[in-house]
Amino acid sequence: MSGYFVTFEGGEGAGKSSALTGVAELLNLQGYSVVITREPGGISISEQIREILLDKKNIEMDARTEALLYAAARRQHLMEKVKPALEEGNIVLCDRFIDSSLAYQGHARGLGIDHIYQINQFAIDHFMPDLTLFFDLKPEVGLARIQANQFREKNRLDVEHLSFHQKVYQGYQLLQKRFPSRIYSIDAEQSLESVIEASFKKIMLQING
Amino acid sequence: MSGYFVTFEGGEGAGKSSALTGVAELLNLQGYSVVITREPGGISISEQIREILLDKKNIEMDARTEALLYAAARRQHLMEKVKPALEEGNIVLCDRFIDSSLAYQGHARGLGIDHIYQINQFAIDHFMPDLTLFFDLKPEVGLARIQANQFREKNRLDVEHLSFHQKVYQGYQLLQKRFPSRIYSIDAEQSLESVIEASFKKIMLQING
Repeated sequence: MSGYFVTFEGGEGAGKSSALTGVAELLNLQGYSVVITREPGGISISEQIREILLDKKNIEMDARTEALLYAAARRQHLMEKVKPALEEGNIVLCDRFIDSSLAYQGHARGLGIDHIYQINQFAIDHFMPDLTLFFDLKPEVGLARIQANQFREKNRLDVEHLSFHQKVYQGYQLLQKRFPSRIYSIDAEQSLESVIEASFKKIMLQING
Repeated sequence: MSGYFVTFEGGEGAGKSSALTGVAELLNLQGYSVVITREPGGISISEQIREILLDKKNIEMDARTEALLYAAARRQHLMEKVKPALEEGNIVLCDRFIDSSLAYQGHARGLGIDHIYQINQFAIDHFMPDLTLFFDLKPEVGLARIQANQFREKNRLDVEHLSFHQKVYQGYQLLQKRFPSRIYSIDAEQSLESVIEASFKKIMLQING
Protein backbone atom coordinates (compact mmCIF):
# COMPACT_ATOMS: atom_id res chain seq x y z
CA MET A 1 0.00 0.00 0.00
CA SER A 2 1.25 3.46 -0.82
CA GLY A 3 0.54 6.28 1.58
CA TYR A 4 -1.44 9.49 1.35
CA PHE A 5 0.05 12.96 1.69
CA VAL A 6 -2.04 15.75 3.25
CA THR A 7 -0.81 19.27 3.93
CA PHE A 8 -2.41 21.75 6.34
CA GLU A 9 -2.32 25.40 5.30
CA GLY A 10 -3.58 28.76 6.46
CA GLY A 11 -2.73 32.03 8.15
CA GLU A 12 -1.71 32.66 11.75
CA GLY A 13 -4.33 31.69 14.33
CA ALA A 14 -6.41 29.63 11.90
CA GLY A 15 -6.03 26.62 14.18
CA LYS A 16 -4.44 24.27 11.65
CA SER A 17 -1.87 22.83 14.08
CA SER A 18 -4.53 21.94 16.67
CA ALA A 19 -6.74 20.50 13.94
CA LEU A 20 -3.84 18.42 12.64
CA THR A 21 -3.37 16.74 16.02
CA GLY A 22 -7.09 16.05 16.31
CA VAL A 23 -7.31 14.60 12.82
CA ALA A 24 -4.34 12.34 13.52
CA GLU A 25 -6.15 10.94 16.57
CA LEU A 26 -9.33 10.23 14.60
CA LEU A 27 -7.35 8.52 11.85
CA ASN A 28 -5.53 6.43 14.44
CA LEU A 29 -8.86 5.36 15.92
CA GLN A 30 -9.84 4.16 12.44
CA GLY A 31 -6.71 2.01 12.38
CA TYR A 32 -4.67 4.16 10.02
CA SER A 33 -0.98 4.57 10.59
CA VAL A 34 -0.27 8.31 10.69
CA VAL A 35 2.93 10.37 10.66
CA ILE A 36 2.64 14.04 11.60
CA THR A 37 5.41 16.45 10.76
CA ARG A 38 6.39 20.01 9.91
CA GLU A 39 9.62 21.28 8.40
CA PRO A 40 12.42 20.95 9.48
CA GLY A 41 10.97 17.97 11.36
CA GLY A 42 14.11 16.76 13.10
CA ILE A 43 15.99 16.23 9.84
CA SER A 44 19.55 17.32 10.59
CA ILE A 45 20.34 19.13 7.33
CA SER A 46 16.97 20.92 7.36
CA GLU A 47 17.53 21.91 11.00
CA GLN A 48 20.93 23.36 10.11
CA ILE A 49 19.33 25.39 7.32
CA ARG A 50 16.56 26.55 9.66
CA GLU A 51 19.19 27.77 12.12
CA ILE A 52 20.57 30.10 9.47
CA LEU A 53 17.05 31.31 8.67
CA LEU A 54 16.18 32.05 12.29
CA ASP A 55 19.52 33.47 13.44
CA LYS A 56 18.81 37.08 14.39
CA LYS A 57 22.38 38.04 13.47
CA ASN A 58 21.55 37.35 9.81
CA ILE A 59 19.74 40.66 9.31
CA GLU A 60 21.39 41.09 5.91
CA MET A 61 19.54 38.12 4.48
CA ASP A 62 18.01 38.87 1.11
CA ALA A 63 14.42 37.71 0.44
CA ARG A 64 15.55 35.48 -2.44
CA THR A 65 18.28 33.86 -0.32
CA GLU A 66 15.58 33.14 2.26
CA ALA A 67 13.26 31.59 -0.33
CA LEU A 68 16.05 29.33 -1.65
CA LEU A 69 16.94 28.21 1.87
CA TYR A 70 13.31 27.33 2.65
CA ALA A 71 13.18 25.34 -0.59
CA ALA A 72 16.42 23.51 0.32
CA ALA A 73 15.12 22.61 3.79
CA ARG A 74 11.87 21.42 2.18
CA ARG A 75 13.72 19.17 -0.24
CA GLN A 76 15.71 17.41 2.45
CA HIS A 77 12.71 16.98 4.78
CA LEU A 78 10.72 15.55 1.88
CA MET A 79 13.42 13.05 0.91
CA GLU A 80 14.36 11.92 4.40
CA LYS A 81 11.02 12.00 6.18
CA VAL A 82 7.90 12.43 4.04
CA LYS A 83 8.74 10.08 1.15
CA PRO A 84 9.97 7.18 3.33
CA ALA A 85 6.86 7.49 5.55
CA LEU A 86 4.59 7.39 2.49
CA GLU A 87 6.48 4.43 1.05
CA GLU A 88 5.80 2.58 4.31
CA GLY A 89 2.09 3.18 3.72
CA ASN A 90 1.49 5.93 6.28
CA ILE A 91 -0.85 8.84 5.99
CA VAL A 92 1.45 11.84 6.32
CA LEU A 93 -0.04 15.04 7.76
CA CYS A 94 2.33 17.94 7.19
CA ASP A 95 1.86 21.33 8.88
CA ARG A 96 2.65 23.80 6.04
CA PHE A 97 4.33 22.92 2.75
CA ILE A 98 4.69 24.51 -0.70
CA ASP A 99 1.56 26.67 -0.45
CA SER A 100 2.96 28.51 2.59
CA SER A 101 5.94 29.60 0.50
CA LEU A 102 3.64 30.59 -2.36
CA ALA A 103 1.30 32.62 -0.12
CA TYR A 104 3.88 34.19 2.20
CA GLN A 105 6.97 34.69 0.03
CA GLY A 106 5.42 34.58 -3.42
CA HIS A 107 2.38 36.75 -2.83
CA ALA A 108 2.65 38.63 0.50
CA ARG A 109 6.38 39.41 0.24
CA GLY A 110 5.99 40.16 -3.44
CA LEU A 111 8.55 37.77 -4.94
CA GLY A 112 5.89 36.42 -7.29
CA ILE A 113 3.92 33.19 -6.96
CA ASP A 114 5.29 31.90 -10.28
CA HIS A 115 8.92 32.40 -9.26
CA ILE A 116 8.45 30.73 -5.90
CA TYR A 117 6.51 27.95 -7.59
CA GLN A 118 9.44 27.31 -9.96
CA ILE A 119 12.11 26.93 -7.29
CA ASN A 120 9.78 24.83 -5.16
CA GLN A 121 8.94 22.57 -8.08
CA PHE A 122 12.67 22.01 -8.44
CA ALA A 123 12.80 21.24 -4.70
CA ILE A 124 9.90 18.79 -4.59
CA ASP A 125 10.39 17.50 -8.16
CA HIS A 126 6.62 17.48 -8.83
CA PHE A 127 5.92 15.56 -5.64
CA MET A 128 2.79 17.53 -4.75
CA PRO A 129 0.43 16.78 -1.84
CA ASP A 130 -2.48 14.47 -2.62
CA LEU A 131 -4.71 16.85 -0.69
CA THR A 132 -4.26 20.27 0.89
CA LEU A 133 -6.63 21.53 3.58
CA PHE A 134 -6.84 25.31 3.66
CA PHE A 135 -8.07 26.64 7.00
CA ASP A 136 -10.06 29.58 5.83
CA LEU A 137 -10.26 32.33 8.44
CA LYS A 138 -10.27 36.09 8.04
CA PRO A 139 -6.92 37.43 9.26
CA GLU A 140 -8.58 39.86 11.71
CA VAL A 141 -10.18 36.88 13.45
CA GLY A 142 -6.97 34.83 13.44
CA LEU A 143 -4.90 37.66 14.90
CA ALA A 144 -7.53 38.34 17.59
CA ARG A 145 -7.38 34.67 18.56
CA ILE A 146 -3.60 34.83 18.92
CA GLN A 147 -3.76 37.98 21.02
CA ALA A 148 -6.33 36.34 23.30
CA ASN A 149 -4.09 33.30 23.79
CA GLN A 150 -1.72 34.25 26.58
CA PHE A 151 0.04 30.87 26.50
CA ARG A 152 1.12 31.09 22.90
CA GLU A 153 4.56 32.49 22.31
CA LYS A 154 4.34 35.22 19.68
CA ASN A 155 6.64 34.74 16.70
CA ARG A 156 7.88 37.22 14.12
CA LEU A 157 4.95 36.61 11.77
CA ASP A 158 2.32 36.99 14.50
CA VAL A 159 3.32 40.59 15.06
CA GLU A 160 3.49 41.70 11.41
CA HIS A 161 1.05 44.36 10.42
CA LEU A 162 -2.52 43.28 9.60
CA SER A 163 -2.07 44.28 5.96
CA PHE A 164 0.63 41.62 5.60
CA HIS A 165 -1.70 38.90 6.91
CA GLN A 166 -4.40 40.14 4.57
CA LYS A 167 -2.01 39.65 1.66
CA VAL A 168 -1.23 36.13 2.88
CA TYR A 169 -4.96 35.41 2.98
CA GLN A 170 -5.39 36.81 -0.51
CA GLY A 171 -2.47 34.61 -1.63
CA TYR A 172 -4.20 31.48 -0.36
CA GLN A 173 -7.37 32.51 -2.16
CA LEU A 174 -5.43 32.85 -5.43
CA LEU A 175 -3.93 29.40 -4.88
CA GLN A 176 -7.35 27.87 -4.34
CA LYS A 177 -8.44 29.19 -7.71
CA ARG A 178 -5.29 27.82 -9.26
CA PHE A 179 -5.42 24.35 -7.71
CA PRO A 180 -9.15 23.72 -7.15
CA SER A 181 -8.89 19.94 -7.21
CA ARG A 182 -6.03 19.77 -4.70
CA ILE A 183 -6.86 22.55 -2.23
CA TYR A 184 -10.00 22.05 -0.16
CA SER A 185 -11.28 24.84 2.01
CA ILE A 186 -12.29 24.26 5.64
CA ASP A 187 -14.38 26.92 7.38
CA ALA A 188 -12.05 27.68 10.29
CA GLU A 189 -14.47 29.99 12.09
CA GLN A 190 -16.30 26.92 13.36
CA SER A 191 -15.45 25.27 16.70
CA LEU A 192 -12.23 23.24 16.74
CA GLU A 193 -14.34 20.10 17.04
CA SER A 194 -16.26 20.92 13.85
CA VAL A 195 -13.03 21.85 12.04
CA ILE A 196 -11.47 18.50 12.98
CA GLU A 197 -14.62 16.65 11.91
CA ALA A 198 -14.75 18.39 8.53
CA SER A 199 -11.04 17.76 7.91
CA PHE A 200 -11.32 14.11 8.88
CA LYS A 201 -14.37 13.57 6.66
CA LYS A 202 -12.65 15.09 3.64
CA ILE A 203 -9.57 12.90 4.08
CA MET A 204 -11.72 9.77 4.46
CA LEU A 205 -13.69 10.66 1.35
CA GLN A 206 -10.49 11.12 -0.68
CA ILE A 207 -8.85 7.94 0.55
CA ASN A 208 -11.90 5.76 0.04
CA GLY A 209 -13.48 7.64 -2.85
CA MET B 1 31.02 54.95 -13.66
CA SER B 2 29.49 51.51 -13.43
CA GLY B 3 31.74 48.49 -13.08
CA TYR B 4 32.40 45.45 -15.21
CA PHE B 5 31.67 41.89 -14.11
CA VAL B 6 33.94 39.08 -15.35
CA THR B 7 33.64 35.43 -14.29
CA PHE B 8 36.38 32.80 -14.65
CA GLU B 9 35.24 29.28 -15.48
CA GLY B 10 36.71 25.89 -16.30
CA GLY B 11 37.48 22.42 -15.02
CA GLU B 12 39.97 21.36 -12.36
CA GLY B 13 43.58 22.19 -13.15
CA ALA B 14 42.74 24.62 -15.94
CA GLY B 15 44.65 27.35 -14.14
CA LYS B 16 41.82 29.86 -13.88
CA SER B 17 42.62 30.90 -10.29
CA SER B 18 46.26 31.66 -11.11
CA ALA B 19 45.19 33.48 -14.26
CA LEU B 20 42.70 35.54 -12.27
CA THR B 21 45.42 36.84 -9.95
CA GLY B 22 47.66 37.66 -12.90
CA VAL B 23 44.90 39.49 -14.76
CA ALA B 24 44.07 41.50 -11.65
CA GLU B 25 47.70 42.67 -11.45
CA LEU B 26 47.74 43.76 -15.11
CA LEU B 27 44.45 45.64 -14.68
CA ASN B 28 45.83 47.35 -11.59
CA LEU B 29 48.90 48.44 -13.55
CA GLN B 30 46.53 50.05 -16.07
CA GLY B 31 44.97 52.02 -13.24
CA TYR B 32 41.76 50.03 -12.93
CA SER B 33 40.28 49.36 -9.55
CA VAL B 34 39.77 45.61 -9.26
CA VAL B 35 37.93 43.39 -6.76
CA ILE B 36 38.66 39.66 -6.87
CA THR B 37 36.34 37.20 -5.19
CA ARG B 38 34.90 33.72 -5.16
CA GLU B 39 31.85 32.44 -3.31
CA PRO B 40 31.32 32.49 -0.34
CA GLY B 41 33.85 35.34 -0.30
CA GLY B 42 33.75 36.19 3.39
CA ILE B 43 30.02 36.96 3.34
CA SER B 44 28.73 35.60 6.63
CA ILE B 45 25.44 34.08 5.45
CA SER B 46 27.13 32.50 2.43
CA GLU B 47 29.88 31.12 4.67
CA GLN B 48 27.26 29.58 6.98
CA ILE B 49 25.62 27.93 3.97
CA ARG B 50 28.98 26.70 2.70
CA GLU B 51 29.64 25.10 6.08
CA ILE B 52 26.52 22.96 5.66
CA LEU B 53 27.62 22.04 2.13
CA LEU B 54 31.11 21.01 3.20
CA ASP B 55 30.26 19.28 6.49
CA LYS B 56 31.22 15.64 6.00
CA LYS B 57 28.52 14.57 8.47
CA ASN B 58 25.90 15.67 5.94
CA ILE B 59 26.24 12.54 3.79
CA GLU B 60 22.45 12.35 3.40
CA MET B 61 22.38 15.56 1.39
CA ASP B 62 20.28 15.24 -1.73
CA ALA B 63 21.65 16.66 -5.00
CA ARG B 64 18.74 19.11 -5.31
CA THR B 65 19.20 20.36 -1.73
CA GLU B 66 22.85 20.96 -2.61
CA ALA B 67 21.94 22.89 -5.77
CA LEU B 68 19.49 25.10 -3.86
CA LEU B 69 22.08 25.82 -1.16
CA TYR B 70 24.68 26.81 -3.75
CA ALA B 71 22.11 29.12 -5.35
CA ALA B 72 21.29 30.66 -1.94
CA ALA B 73 24.98 31.28 -1.16
CA ARG B 74 25.39 32.79 -4.64
CA ARG B 75 22.48 35.19 -4.09
CA GLN B 76 23.84 36.54 -0.84
CA HIS B 77 27.42 36.91 -2.14
CA LEU B 78 26.07 38.73 -5.20
CA MET B 79 23.97 41.15 -3.14
CA GLU B 80 26.53 41.89 -0.42
CA LYS B 81 29.79 41.80 -2.36
CA VAL B 82 29.58 41.75 -6.16
CA LYS B 83 26.82 44.34 -6.70
CA PRO B 84 28.19 46.93 -4.24
CA ALA B 85 31.69 46.56 -5.78
CA LEU B 86 30.29 47.09 -9.28
CA GLU B 87 28.25 50.09 -8.13
CA GLU B 88 31.49 51.63 -6.83
CA GLY B 89 32.90 51.28 -10.35
CA ASN B 90 35.24 48.33 -9.81
CA ILE B 91 36.05 45.59 -12.24
CA VAL B 92 34.94 42.45 -10.40
CA LEU B 93 36.77 39.21 -11.24
CA CYS B 94 34.85 36.25 -9.81
CA ASP B 95 36.33 32.73 -9.68
CA ARG B 96 33.36 30.54 -10.71
CA PHE B 97 29.73 31.65 -10.92
CA ILE B 98 26.51 30.41 -12.53
CA ASP B 99 28.25 28.41 -15.30
CA SER B 100 29.98 26.19 -12.72
CA SER B 101 26.57 25.17 -11.36
CA LEU B 102 25.29 24.59 -14.89
CA ALA B 103 28.30 22.48 -15.94
CA TYR B 104 28.83 20.53 -12.71
CA GLN B 105 25.35 20.09 -11.25
CA GLY B 106 23.22 20.63 -14.34
CA HIS B 107 25.20 18.59 -16.85
CA ALA B 108 27.75 16.37 -15.08
CA ARG B 109 25.54 15.42 -12.11
CA GLY B 110 22.59 15.06 -14.44
CA LEU B 111 20.12 17.46 -12.78
CA GLY B 112 19.59 19.19 -16.12
CA ILE B 113 21.09 22.47 -17.31
CA ASP B 114 17.62 24.01 -17.73
CA HIS B 115 16.55 23.22 -14.16
CA ILE B 116 19.76 24.56 -12.65
CA TYR B 117 19.50 27.61 -14.91
CA GLN B 118 16.00 28.33 -13.57
CA ILE B 119 16.89 28.28 -9.87
CA ASN B 120 20.05 30.28 -10.55
CA GLN B 121 18.14 32.87 -12.55
CA PHE B 122 15.90 33.25 -9.50
CA ALA B 123 19.06 33.62 -7.38
CA ILE B 124 20.82 36.20 -9.54
CA ASP B 125 17.61 37.82 -10.87
CA HIS B 126 19.02 38.10 -14.41
CA PHE B 127 22.21 39.73 -13.17
CA MET B 128 24.49 37.85 -15.57
CA PRO B 129 28.25 38.44 -15.98
CA ASP B 130 29.26 40.96 -18.64
CA LEU B 131 31.94 38.53 -19.77
CA THR B 132 32.84 34.94 -18.91
CA LEU B 133 36.28 33.54 -19.66
CA PHE B 134 36.22 29.78 -20.17
CA PHE B 135 39.64 28.19 -19.62
CA ASP B 136 39.51 25.48 -22.22
CA LEU B 137 41.67 22.49 -21.30
CA LYS B 138 41.10 18.79 -21.91
CA PRO B 139 40.30 17.16 -18.56
CA GLU B 140 43.10 14.59 -18.94
CA VAL B 141 45.59 17.44 -19.09
CA GLY B 142 44.01 19.30 -16.17
CA LEU B 143 44.02 16.24 -13.94
CA ALA B 144 47.62 15.42 -14.83
CA ARG B 145 48.58 18.97 -13.83
CA ILE B 146 46.89 18.56 -10.46
CA GLN B 147 48.60 15.23 -9.82
CA ALA B 148 51.97 16.76 -10.65
CA ASN B 149 51.40 19.61 -8.21
CA GLN B 150 52.44 18.24 -4.83
CA PHE B 151 51.70 21.52 -3.06
CA ARG B 152 48.04 21.61 -4.03
CA GLU B 153 45.65 20.12 -1.54
CA LYS B 154 43.37 17.68 -3.34
CA ASN B 155 39.66 18.36 -2.90
CA ARG B 156 36.66 16.09 -3.41
CA LEU B 157 36.24 17.08 -7.06
CA ASP B 158 39.91 16.55 -7.91
CA VAL B 159 39.65 12.87 -7.16
CA GLU B 160 36.40 12.15 -9.01
CA HIS B 161 36.69 9.74 -11.87
CA LEU B 162 37.94 11.09 -15.20
CA SER B 163 34.55 10.44 -16.81
CA PHE B 164 32.98 12.98 -14.44
CA HIS B 165 35.48 15.66 -15.48
CA GLN B 166 34.83 14.82 -19.11
CA LYS B 167 31.14 15.48 -18.52
CA VAL B 168 31.97 18.81 -16.89
CA TYR B 169 34.06 19.73 -19.93
CA GLN B 170 31.23 18.71 -22.25
CA GLY B 171 28.88 20.84 -20.12
CA TYR B 172 31.05 23.92 -20.62
CA GLN B 173 31.13 23.26 -24.36
CA LEU B 174 27.33 23.16 -24.42
CA LEU B 175 27.22 26.45 -22.52
CA GLN B 176 29.56 28.09 -24.99
CA LYS B 177 27.18 27.20 -27.80
CA ARG B 178 24.28 28.54 -25.78
CA PHE B 179 25.88 31.83 -24.74
CA PRO B 180 28.35 32.60 -27.56
CA SER B 181 28.39 36.36 -27.01
CA ARG B 182 29.02 36.11 -23.26
CA ILE B 183 31.40 33.14 -22.96
CA TYR B 184 34.85 33.58 -24.50
CA SER B 185 37.19 30.66 -24.76
CA ILE B 186 40.84 30.91 -23.68
CA ASP B 187 43.25 28.19 -24.81
CA ALA B 188 44.45 27.02 -21.38
CA GLU B 189 47.11 24.67 -22.74
CA GLN B 190 49.35 27.67 -23.32
CA SER B 191 51.80 28.91 -20.70
CA LEU B 192 50.30 30.77 -17.74
CA GLU B 193 51.85 33.97 -19.07
CA SER B 194 50.10 33.57 -22.42
CA VAL B 195 46.81 32.68 -20.73
CA ILE B 196 46.99 35.81 -18.58
CA GLU B 197 47.85 37.93 -21.63
CA ALA B 198 44.94 36.55 -23.67
CA SER B 199 42.51 37.06 -20.78
CA PHE B 200 43.68 40.60 -20.14
CA LYS B 201 43.46 41.53 -23.83
CA LYS B 202 39.90 40.24 -24.09
CA ILE B 203 38.78 42.20 -21.03
CA MET B 204 40.43 45.39 -22.35
CA LEU B 205 38.76 44.93 -25.72
CA GLN B 206 35.35 44.52 -24.11
CA ILE B 207 35.72 47.47 -21.76
CA ASN B 208 37.03 49.84 -24.39
CA GLY B 209 35.29 48.36 -27.41
